[in-house]
Amino acid sequence: MDSQPRSICLVGVGLITGSLGLALRAAGAAGEVTGFGRDPRRLEKARALGAIDRFSTDPHQVVAQADVVVLGVPLGAVAPVLAHLAPALPADAVLTDVGSAKGCVVADVERVFGGLPDGFVPGHPIAGTEHSGVEAAFASLYQNRRVLLTPTRATRPGATETITAMWQAAGATVTTMSVAHHDRMLAMTSHLPHMLAFGLVDMLSRAPDHEEILDYAAGGFRDFTRIASSDPVMWRDVCLGNREAILSALGDYQRDLTELARLIESADAAGLESVFASAKATRDANRHRFED
Amino acid sequence: MDSQPRSICLVGVGLITGSLGLALRAAGAAGEVTGFGRDPRRLEKARALGAIDRFSTDPHQVVAQADVVVLGVPLGAVAPVLAHLAPALPADAVLTDVGSAKGCVVADVERVFGGLPDGFVPGHPIAGTEHSGVEAAFASLYQNRRVLLTPTRATRPGATETITAMWQAAGATVTTMSVAHHDRMLAMTSHLPHMLAFGLVDMLSRAPDHEEILDYAAGGFRDFTRIASSDPVMWRDVCLGNREAILSALGDYQRDLTELARLIESADAAGLESVFASAKATRDANRHRFED
Repeated sequence: MDSQPRSICLVGVGLITGSLGLALRAAGAAGEVTGFGRDPRRLEKARALGAIDRFSTDPHQVVAQADVVVLGVPLGAVAPVLAHLAPALPADAVLTDVGSAKGCVVADVERVFGGLPDGFVPGHPIAGTEHSGVEAAFASLYQNRRVLLTPTRATRPGATETITAMWQAAGATVTTMSVAHHDRMLAMTSHLPHMLAFGLVDMLSRAPDHEEILDYAAGGFRDFTRIASSDPVMWRDVCLGNREAILSALGDYQRDLTELARLIESADAAGLESVFASAKATRDANRHRFED
Repeated sequence: MDSQPRSICLVGVGLITGSLGLALRAAGAAGEVTGFGRDPRRLEKARALGAIDRFSTDPHQVVAQADVVVLGVPLGAVAPVLAHLAPALPADAVLTDVGSAKGCVVADVERVFGGLPDGFVPGHPIAGTEHSGVEAAFASLYQNRRVLLTPTRATRPGATETITAMWQAAGATVTTMSVAHHDRMLAMTSHLPHMLAFGLVDMLSRAPDHEEILDYAAGGFRDFTRIASSDPVMWRDVCLGNREAILSALGDYQRDLTELARLIESADAAGLESVFASAKATRDANRHRFED
């Protein structure tokens, strides 16, 4: 598709799709941006905030007219929501999503449609805040952020181009990779760190003197707590959805932690300094990547 | 001591003691602030930056005149530096330090002096940045920050009052507790989180595709990398100095991580959501403690 989409339908309008809607409308990158969901009051809020032009709780009013459908529901809801939408989805529509894991979404799509539609382009914008809901959405969320697309063996090139152009219109850079590579990368750089942070906050909150512990949170603990403020349901679904890659990364980490414990146990000064110096060197060499 | 100190000597003038010197001189909280160290050029820099009034590499020129001596050297250097200073230290001087662990400092002092001096007040300001050196020092570092003092069984009350007043003059609030309690608290809120972060950055830096991994650092990993930029020598010494409390906290954490891995392995949705919700509730209930 060379021209811009006439109609982009956002299925579930929260922080991620809401920000996309705001960006696309600001950029004039679609004829219209519509919304579909279960709660008309939340959809009205999305419209009032400018994320969408119009909405409906009936897929035949919005999904059926769409050139592009962006699935913005929790990973655990992908299969039932798609099953609900499928009868209204135009045969040549491009379907994409924004989930933090891709293998499970591909599996859900394949199950619902009895195969992989050639218009399906799994996607994942690497952006977000610890807030949720369309009230937290803003048009510049994707400026200079990276979006990962994982076209399947069935995806037609034109569909990938359409979704690439959509995210570029929102200000993002787009990279494609395989589903497996995506899930492994994200397990290491996002899912595992979240597990580690959740685990630490949970452990300290159960300590007998946890009130006092939280008073001394300035010393490193605070960095972990921001992550722990993320949505529990989303992260439950990420664990279930990217289970194998997360378990693999977690296993590797646990082995490294055991080795670190051994270095401390045996008071191996040189070994400890080496681990810490390596980590610092990595961070310092890559500062530019870590700062907005 | 009711009146302010005539002479406060900073032994080692880096970020922590340098900022203290800047704060005390700005507050007019001492007759003079002096510096002692090995490198006259670095001491001259500290003087030029306003952290100290004068300095010497000869303890008899600065330590011998001090009412208060603040030890600001790495944990691993405490014993040898104290042994070097001891002949010049006035019998009634108040001695304090700024180390991230207290048990090892108390042990070093006891060994060097053949007992615990009644003027010795172990201390630890909960403040700092990932930078080091007096060039990074600033006068407001301790504003509204917490300083923990761990007077020993031998410490005279007047000495604790002197050090309390000193830190209050720098803008901090002061809390006292036992050495063991301090080391356990800091193991959980600072030392363990640093171990976890160092471990993660080190693991990812050794992955075959680590260059690409670092490109996707926005998703949680970045929060860990700031911690990993800390001084490797300081953290080596913290591991060695607070070894038992760190191993205890690390062991508890490893057991919790094994349980989390089990929840993921068995796809226990309710169990996972419960852990994440508990962590989020803790963080949200304590936001005010985590934000400056």
